[in-house]
Amino acid sequence: MEVRQHLSQLDLFKGLTAEQLEAITGTVTEKDYRKGELIFAEGDEGVGFYLVIRGRVKVYKLSAEGKEQIMHIFGPRMPFAEVPVFAGSRYPANAEAMESSRLFFFPKKSFITLIQENPLLAMNMLASLSQRLKQFSNLIETLSLKEVPGRLASYLLYLSDKNGSIDEFKLDIAKSQLASLLGTIPETLSRIFAKMGAREIVSIKGPEITILDREGLEDLAEGNTKL
Amino acid sequence: MEVRQHLSQLDLFKGLTAEQLEAITGTVTEKDYRKGELIFAEGDEGVGFYLVIRGRVKVYKLSAEGKEQIMHIFGPRMPFAEVPVFAGSRYPANAEAMESSRLFFFPKKSFITLIQENPLLAMNMLASLSQRLKQFSNLIETLSLKEVPGRLASYLLYLSDKNGSIDEFKLDIAKSQLASLLGTIPETLSRIFAKMGAREIVSIKGPEITILDREGLEDLAEGNTKL
Repeated sequence: MEVRQHLSQLDLFKGLTAEQLEAITGTVTEKDYRKGELIFAEGDEGVGFYLVIRGRVKVYKLSAEGKEQIMHIFGPRMPFAEVPVFAGSRYPANAEAMESSRLFFFPKKSFITLIQENPLLAMNMLASLSQRLKQFSNLIETLSLKEVPGRLASYLLYLSDKNGSIDEFKLDIAKSQLASLLGTIPETLSRIFAKMGAREIVSIKGPEITILDREGLEDLAEGNTKL
Repeated sequence: MEVRQHLSQLDLFKGLTAEQLEAITGTVTEKDYRKGELIFAEGDEGVGFYLVIRGRVKVYKLSAEGKEQIMHIFGPRMPFAEVPVFAGSRYPANAEAMESSRLFFFPKKSFITLIQENPLLAMNMLASLSQRLKQFSNLIETLSLKEVPGRLASYLLYLSDKNGSIDEFKLDIAKSQLASLLGTIPETLSRIFAKMGAREIVSIKGPEITILDREGLEDLAEGNTKL
């Protein structure tokens, strides 16, 4: 698919005219990354933002001891690393390709010119950043106010909702990554999955999850019951 | 001071013409809140955003058991609750006046019209939201990757920096609030303050903090040493 065709399908560019899309297309660079390849490191100069075309990218922070906290996982059609385009000048976290990925890169300077000439693009970007703020609020709530079983229950409900409230779906990341996202270690996560299975709240076969007791899962997520 | 004079001093409205400021002024409502008064609750319809003129406001989440996690404390000249203006339609957290406060309220609908007509205002708002995203990233890092002494050390360095890297300053919130902000309880916080005092890293007299050993405090904040 051509760059412009990709752009026309994205929320960030919805409502733009063909001419406006053409102008944006002219600024884009395509970049390919191998699985595990670093896209940028925290503190690097923020030269622009990215959009995932194919693959998946994790944005994460590292502690002094090397412990990783995933902030967000970005899949196809999702922009990331916009912060240094509008505030400050450095990337506030690290980004790494979780699998072989193709990204579009939007250089800061030309994007700022485009957005200043284009109120609809500015509104779309405001919506995108606000959405991210909402997700970060939820992550802060999850990390700070919920026990690990509640965090896992919330995440499973989130995955179910994302796929149209279905009861059977696949985990979209490896269990070790999921542990990091939920601020815990793989061993603890395995124990909680086992308990959820024994209580017949969910059944787990490899990456395949089936919700057996949605109400029970919601009670866990809301902290009304404990495992 | 008049509404327009206030607005002209704010980062959010910098660079705007007198005419543009006049148009914004026409949409603003002034609101006064008593200490402890709720401004909005999580899930309320997001009818607009606020700006602090006088006083202080905490935005926070509550767990099922009533435990509070402060997301952010907003003081004079700071806007808050912009998320539902641009994404979704409900406030994603609670807001309460921490002291007697005067706020400006900007209704959603008229503000969207203003921002669409005004690229500079859009850019200022993008900068404001990006700044908040950066702060939320840091809070996620603090809550997830640092032990409580490291969180406190980071917060004290933040207060020092905010006041121009001075070594003597006052805590800007009560210690019980600070405990909530750092995701801990007042007893734990007191014990850590006592240890920091015994090690001559900081001295604490009521709300007054003196940094005695900045390097030691930085090592704690970065997780290089433990208390």
